[in-house]
Amino acid sequence: MGKELTSREQDYSQWYNDLIIKGSLADYSAVRGCMVIKPYGFALWENMRDVLDKMFKDTGHQNAYFPLFVPKSLFEAEEKNAEGFAKECAVVTHYRLKTDPNNKGKLMVDPEAKLEEELVVRPTSEAIIWNTYKGWIQSYRDLPLLINQWANVVRWEMRTRLFLRTAEFLWQEGHTAHSTAEEAIEETRKMLDVYADFAENWMALPVIKGVKSPNERFAGAEDTYCIEALMQDGKALQAGTSHFLGQNFAKAFDVKFSDKNNKLDYVWATSWGVSTRLIGGLVMAHSDDDGLILPPKIAPTQVVIVPIYKGEEQKLLIDATVHPIIAQLKALNISVKYDDSDNSRPGWKFAEYELKGVPVRVAVGARDLENKVVEVARRDTKEKTTVPVDGIAQYVEQLLAAIQQQMFNKAKSYRDNHITLANTWEEFVNILDTKAGFVSAHWDGTAETEDKIKELAKATIRCIPLDNPLEDGVCILSGKKSTQRVLFARAY
Amino acid sequence: MGKELTSREQDYSQWYNDLIIKGSLADYSAVRGCMVIKPYGFALWENMRDVLDKMFKDTGHQNAYFPLFVPKSLFEAEEKNAEGFAKECAVVTHYRLKTDPNNKGKLMVDPEAKLEEELVVRPTSEAIIWNTYKGWIQSYRDLPLLINQWANVVRWEMRTRLFLRTAEFLWQEGHTAHSTAEEAIEETRKMLDVYADFAENWMALPVIKGVKSPNERFAGAEDTYCIEALMQDGKALQAGTSHFLGQNFAKAFDVKFSDKNNKLDYVWATSWGVSTRLIGGLVMAHSDDDGLILPPKIAPTQVVIVPIYKGEEQKLLIDATVHPIIAQLKALNISVKYDDSDNSRPGWKFAEYELKGVPVRVAVGARDLENKVVEVARRDTKEKTTVPVDGIAQYVEQLLAAIQQQMFNKAKSYRDNHITLANTWEEFVNILDTKAGFVSAHWDGTAETEDKIKELAKATIRCIPLDNPLEDGVCILSGKKSTQRVLFARAY
Repeated sequence: MGKELTSREQDYSQWYNDLIIKGSLADYSAVRGCMVIKPYGFALWENMRDVLDKMFKDTGHQNAYFPLFVPKSLFEAEEKNAEGFAKECAVVTHYRLKTDPNNKGKLMVDPEAKLEEELVVRPTSEAIIWNTYKGWIQSYRDLPLLINQWANVVRWEMRTRLFLRTAEFLWQEGHTAHSTAEEAIEETRKMLDVYADFAENWMALPVIKGVKSPNERFAGAEDTYCIEALMQDGKALQAGTSHFLGQNFAKAFDVKFSDKNNKLDYVWATSWGVSTRLIGGLVMAHSDDDGLILPPKIAPTQVVIVPIYKGEEQKLLIDATVHPIIAQLKALNISVKYDDSDNSRPGWKFAEYELKGVPVRVAVGARDLENKVVEVARRDTKEKTTVPVDGIAQYVEQLLAAIQQQMFNKAKSYRDNHITLANTWEEFVNILDTKAGFVSAHWDGTAETEDKIKELAKATIRCIPLDNPLEDGVCILSGKKSTQRVLFARAY
Repeated sequence: MGKELTSREQDYSQWYNDLIIKGSLADYSAVRGCMVIKPYGFALWENMRDVLDKMFKDTGHQNAYFPLFVPKSLFEAEEKNAEGFAKECAVVTHYRLKTDPNNKGKLMVDPEAKLEEELVVRPTSEAIIWNTYKGWIQSYRDLPLLINQWANVVRWEMRTRLFLRTAEFLWQEGHTAHSTAEEAIEETRKMLDVYADFAENWMALPVIKGVKSPNERFAGAEDTYCIEALMQDGKALQAGTSHFLGQNFAKAFDVKFSDKNNKLDYVWATSWGVSTRLIGGLVMAHSDDDGLILPPKIAPTQVVIVPIYKGEEQKLLIDATVHPIIAQLKALNISVKYDDSDNSRPGWKFAEYELKGVPVRVAVGARDLENKVVEVARRDTKEKTTVPVDGIAQYVEQLLAAIQQQMFNKAKSYRDNHITLANTWEEFVNILDTKAGFVSAHWDGTAETEDKIKELAKATIRCIPLDNPLEDGVCILSGKKSTQRVLFARAY
């Protein structure tokens, strides 16, 4: 009965893969490093996308769509950005296949159809977008330009993981243009707040807002803000980033505007993005050894109802009770599935919906109906309660809210218990090796020390938290003076 | 005042481009044959997508996402499909760029990062999807499999037109798997009906449902059904296709299922798609020399309100009237924009919203308010009416419905008047050269004659209408016997 899952203790990494594959979120594909997002996983992504999309529109952004391909000459225009992504670019060099004369039924690249200029499959769209903005921005009246794009991007990663790191992934990328640095920075921080709001209040995923060290900045950014989450194995996950790009792209693509006094200046830019990687974070933060645990506010199915009966007569009685319950739940905007298929037994169904992380299960047995009750089980705690049919919809509505809150509280409590202070190198390494999680430690502020720590301890600076208190100390590695602690962790 | 537009009579093709560019639907890009869909155009696409997506879900389909890339060996597996698309494939051959040692600040394709197997950027996804379905389908219990994907695809067309034919375009592609041919054919026809419903009842675009001649079939299909629309220049536009794929892809990818009697058989398939091309059809079917005319049911902005005033005091009075009207319209789910910007004069705004095809314009002048009236103008007929403020929201709601209906009626009347019978070759050519539109004529049923007609008259068989009456006759070109008329046209 049910599908065999690896436990977290046995093999955390295999547990994760099992949940993704057996929980029907995604599948491997024939293309190296690329995955197929299955209907259940895609329904989850649609819910996340729709919430984010509304948040973007509510903050004044509009969607648009820019080309998949970036001509090499545009791609290389902003040097740091180009350098940062050059090593992982899929490149289109030809535009035609032809019949292979030496291989019946096979095709080959037509050498005569070589492109004059190679096309990079976008790893991110700053270059193609800023080249377009050049034609759209002349004066301060054209600013701010607040645009978002939902798209697929490709980064040729050598080591891939379902959702967490795939060669092709789906994301949104906001690209805004402003007349002042202050306004662009405000936008950068505003979108970071939107991401944190979404992560905490929809995904039940507590995050730390912070700014990246120069080493970890987005290629081409002046500053990279991020939200960092903690997974159940104590590793950190960067869940979203928002970049203040200064005038780097405006200069690379010569995008100037005339201000109210007719003075020309380069435009200020931001970009910000979250991706299907969030689904990986969601799975790792909440799930258990029996399967996925999905937050009610974004779960594709919030409630599943399973009938338990013998014979057609009992089934009809149960149906007569269940149909009004479904109507009541739907009236409360609760998504519900009535699984009365006779292919499989209730026990198999219970395991299946546990695996898929459906937040609430309602079991309706013929005997229960004599007492006008049903059995309600919550996925997160596995607690079961006998509940009167009368008022069941309101009960479920409140339960869903309680589950959402409890999932957040649990993840937050775990996260808060895994921010540990280290004052010496020995403590630092010891915490990483035994307890894991975030380690708050002094750092001398240099890239050299950061690199050395990464090399020795395999931990990176996840962020310098916003509103970080100043505190005199000495760097855990170099012993040099430091003015504040930063958060280190091993990370995905 | 306003932006200069080419008239249809002057240059139909330039008129179309003017509307797309100046109406802010799309822009050219730096990538050959690819366009940028601007926020206004994308909002239109979002509305169309959302309606279609709901229709797909209401007919039992789920969304999923498959890789952008198709390995060459999979791409060539279904030979006819591969042959049909080989000539227009963008091909990824390398996965890395590196610094060009001979060209400071420039990048070059790294010859050491050549892929072992080339990747085709999907021109359509049958190959990658059927290769995946192989792992998902074992028995009749796994069928039907009803999946849709919203995605970008690339076809390296030599001659491109904004929206109508671009190298990259956005579309949806449904890919379903069935246990019997009958069920697959039923699905093919059902989705054709969905497309026709959407075109007629949402886009106000009358279409003819039919089946393609073998020459015009989708590469790899047993039968291609289509909806064909007529543009204002008398040219036809294929607006959507639905394919019965038989067992071709199941055989190419070895996808078998065991039926209830444990007998193995190949799975039956369909695929169906519509794309951003629909926007081109929408523009060409309805618009006039002053700009776009968008059907109310999918227009990004249904109503624009423009205040006409002198001085702050009048403006405040107008605001006091307009704000409740906005609230009433929103309560009726009508999207409304209040353009009270002081950058431009009312006349300029009128022209701008005419250009953008906003269905209803409400002008509110200080003097009108003394009489508690406003001026309502409909975009399609340009008729203006003075309407009491009291009850204005209901008036506008009815007007939007009337405009939607009138747009359909007008397009249908034009289309119906442009289906002309031809019984001789001379008539046939004469109609195409003078009146244009669809020509209903006898054809002997051979591919040779069809090719010859295309060569001589530049007209193709658009479709054999569904439920086409049988009628004895002789082919307009060959003089051979024919049992039915088919619809010819010159087409986009």
